[in-house]
Amino acid sequence: MSRGEHQSKKLKHLGAALESGALAQVRRILNNDLQAADVAHLLESSPPKERNLLWGLIDDENEGEVLQNLSDELQSWVMNRMSVQEVANAMTDLDTDDIADLLQNLPNKITQEVLTSMDSQDRARIEVALSYPEDSAGGLMNTDTITVRPDITLEVVLRYLRRHRSLPDMTDNLLVVNRRDEFIGLLAINKILVSDTETTVREVMNTDIITINANMDDTGVARLFERHDLISAPVVDEHNGQLLGRITIDDVVDVIREDADHSLMSMAGLDEDEDTFATAFKSSRRRAVWLGINLLTAFLASAVIGLFEATIEQVVALAVLMPIVASMGGVAGSQTLTLIIRGQAVGHIDASNVRWLLSREFLVGIINGALWAVVVATATYIWFWDIKISLIIGAAIIINLVVAVMAGAFLPIWLKRLNIDPALAGSVLLTTITDVVGFFAFLGLAAGLYF
Amino acid sequence: MSRGEHQSKKLKHLGAALESGALAQVRRILNNDLQAADVAHLLESSPPKERNLLWGLIDDENEGEVLQNLSDELQSWVMNRMSVQEVANAMTDLDTDDIADLLQNLPNKITQEVLTSMDSQDRARIEVALSYPEDSAGGLMNTDTITVRPDITLEVVLRYLRRHRSLPDMTDNLLVVNRRDEFIGLLAINKILVSDTETTVREVMNTDIITINANMDDTGVARLFERHDLISAPVVDEHNGQLLGRITIDDVVDVIREDADHSLMSMAGLDEDEDTFATAFKSSRRRAVWLGINLLTAFLASAVIGLFEATIEQVVALAVLMPIVASMGGVAGSQTLTLIIRGQAVGHIDASNVRWLLSREFLVGIINGALWAVVVATATYIWFWDIKISLIIGAAIIINLVVAVMAGAFLPIWLKRLNIDPALAGSVLLTTITDVVGFFAFLGLAAGLYF
Repeated sequence: MSRGEHQSKKLKHLGAALESGALAQVRRILNNDLQAADVAHLLESSPPKERNLLWGLIDDENEGEVLQNLSDELQSWVMNRMSVQEVANAMTDLDTDDIADLLQNLPNKITQEVLTSMDSQDRARIEVALSYPEDSAGGLMNTDTITVRPDITLEVVLRYLRRHRSLPDMTDNLLVVNRRDEFIGLLAINKILVSDTETTVREVMNTDIITINANMDDTGVARLFERHDLISAPVVDEHNGQLLGRITIDDVVDVIREDADHSLMSMAGLDEDEDTFATAFKSSRRRAVWLGINLLTAFLASAVIGLFEATIEQVVALAVLMPIVASMGGVAGSQTLTLIIRGQAVGHIDASNVRWLLSREFLVGIINGALWAVVVATATYIWFWDIKISLIIGAAIIINLVVAVMAGAFLPIWLKRLNIDPALAGSVLLTTITDVVGFFAFLGLAAGLYF
Repeated sequence: MSRGEHQSKKLKHLGAALESGALAQVRRILNNDLQAADVAHLLESSPPKERNLLWGLIDDENEGEVLQNLSDELQSWVMNRMSVQEVANAMTDLDTDDIADLLQNLPNKITQEVLTSMDSQDRARIEVALSYPEDSAGGLMNTDTITVRPDITLEVVLRYLRRHRSLPDMTDNLLVVNRRDEFIGLLAINKILVSDTETTVREVMNTDIITINANMDDTGVARLFERHDLISAPVVDEHNGQLLGRITIDDVVDVIREDADHSLMSMAGLDEDEDTFATAFKSSRRRAVWLGINLLTAFLASAVIGLFEATIEQVVALAVLMPIVASMGGVAGSQTLTLIIRGQAVGHIDASNVRWLLSREFLVGIINGALWAVVVATATYIWFWDIKISLIIGAAIIINLVVAVMAGAFLPIWLKRLNIDPALAGSVLLTTITDVVGFFAFLGLAAGLYF
């Protein structure tokens, strides 16, 4: 039986124990049988009441590890239930970058208190990590590096390592620095194993290395890791070349997951960190904002329709058909929007190719506009036996589809230049445009032709 | 200057060389200065004409590495331009899992030809990889493992490794197997470095290991890697416990990226592998399908409106206001849908918590329904000075928002049980429901009250 199956068996036991109220058993499974990451996942997947109960059953010494594995949202939730001393204790065994992440989810005052309760060496290291934004390379990096000098032999390196007894997690390379602590290369662990022990570090180290500036944003870091299949990479001060720390793939995987979730969730006005099991009240409040913004755009669309009340009164078929024009524009636009937002996220789109992209979208708008104009016009004719309405809706479909794909392409590019999140603002702006243009084109053409 | 900056400088040189038509220079940069991953990214970010030109300038011996770094979509595009022999040559230096991936994008007949042109040992290994689905652990795994026996000393292991001269990429562990080739544990490379060389493998190996069944789906593999911060994991035959190969984090990162992109792209009816720079004709054809499906649902909504033509003729304000009801329902529903689809993707949602989730969503529908009913009713009253319409739209908003969030929650859960992709089918079905219910509730109530 594999470990994975073991885990899922234990989880089933836990579920049964929870239901039967056998809390001692639940406590044992939580603290002895499951790994911290599994406990964290269990908390993320539990409704509030069970979550409260489970958290209360976790032993103090395990709280830190579990905490570290939770999403930001849940970290805040949990830490609001802990005293300053408990938070400080929970953090003792964690990596500096993880502690800094946790602290960034606390109110400033509490962060200060937690820092004060730590010993001065830990505090100094964490204050360095806190001095970088959470979403920068500096915020991602760890300072637990093993450094060696270039002129020693591998024999000496091996003796030095044996004195360590254990290496930091994800150590695939030792970092080679000169006397001024400037980074000069990487010594792969695997190289140490397969090389003659008399060789010097300089002879086997790799100097053709991707280094990362502490100020690089985390999405850029993730792209470098993805593209070059890295496990860890050194972070270097861009001014003096000194080694500051290293970033490891486990933290980068979290960035990739969050970045990818971000586009999906933002397009529905949700946060990528949204708690799946937030209470009804909290969920409602969060989503209400988005519904409110949408209501404004909906009223704007209604106002456009209102301009043509007289026309609709004469030809009710217009009211029946008008949602088709708006809806086709909405779908065509959101396809382009999604494509461009994804392209931006993976770094495909820049100044050199944006013009080609815009003209391609224009063509797509024309082609699909013409195609569906014919289909819709035909269907409309069969339905209403009115050639005028049929021609009007066909023309409106072409206009709205071309406008929609152009808006879907331009919006994320403009928004990004203005430093506004395209995934969040793009879909609302796009719907406004496709609704307003759709209704205006259709009803406006009708008003012009009928009067 | 960091390596990253070097690369971007080279890319700028390349851009300048391309524009001035200095093809010899472009060829030199492509083949000597840039890494395969960067060349692949350049191809992904180029419009078709430039892409053709660039691919033609890549030397034969570099084609394999570049090919491996391209998306499925682009791999097919490129391989359709190569002869069977070229494809076979390009693959010689790649890992078995990567070759299998590439072959899966080729027509069956060509795959056979490529396999025939390979030597028998390579062919046998690739046929094993091809025997697993691409999206399973078997399809992700590599067979380039280094195995050791438990009863030898680390001294012997070290001597054995030195004879290898180089280890496979991402080797953080050696795999320990017994005489029957059954997997029994992992020997961490770092353990070899820090332990006494007289120790036996058995004494320092780790047996509390997460092993992966070859049939596990790749999303499950990705979750294990994410949750337990793995760099590599052994793949084991579930029947006889024999070691089959290992999966490494670089391939898992690609799965995470694709899975996350999948939800985003599918909700707009796009493929996660969609080529950002596909030609206008190809793009139009792909998106047309989705527009066609949407048109059917739009006509359905129109048919509902058509039922109430007589009512609209009498009270044109209904036509002005009806899009508001449909649109608010659409937004509320898609928020729930997105939240649930993301929850499913990260594995938060199962039989044990789905009931809580559904009742939470019901409450959210009631709360936000009531809130926005009041706002919309008030705004409507101020606009039309008609208390009847104002009450009708308020009631319709409550009905549609509750139905929308329930549909947003139930749909992905049902669709998943039916093995239909919720991200793809969910949004279309949801829009149909919120449009139909929205128009029916609003116009139906009006018809009832006015006549």
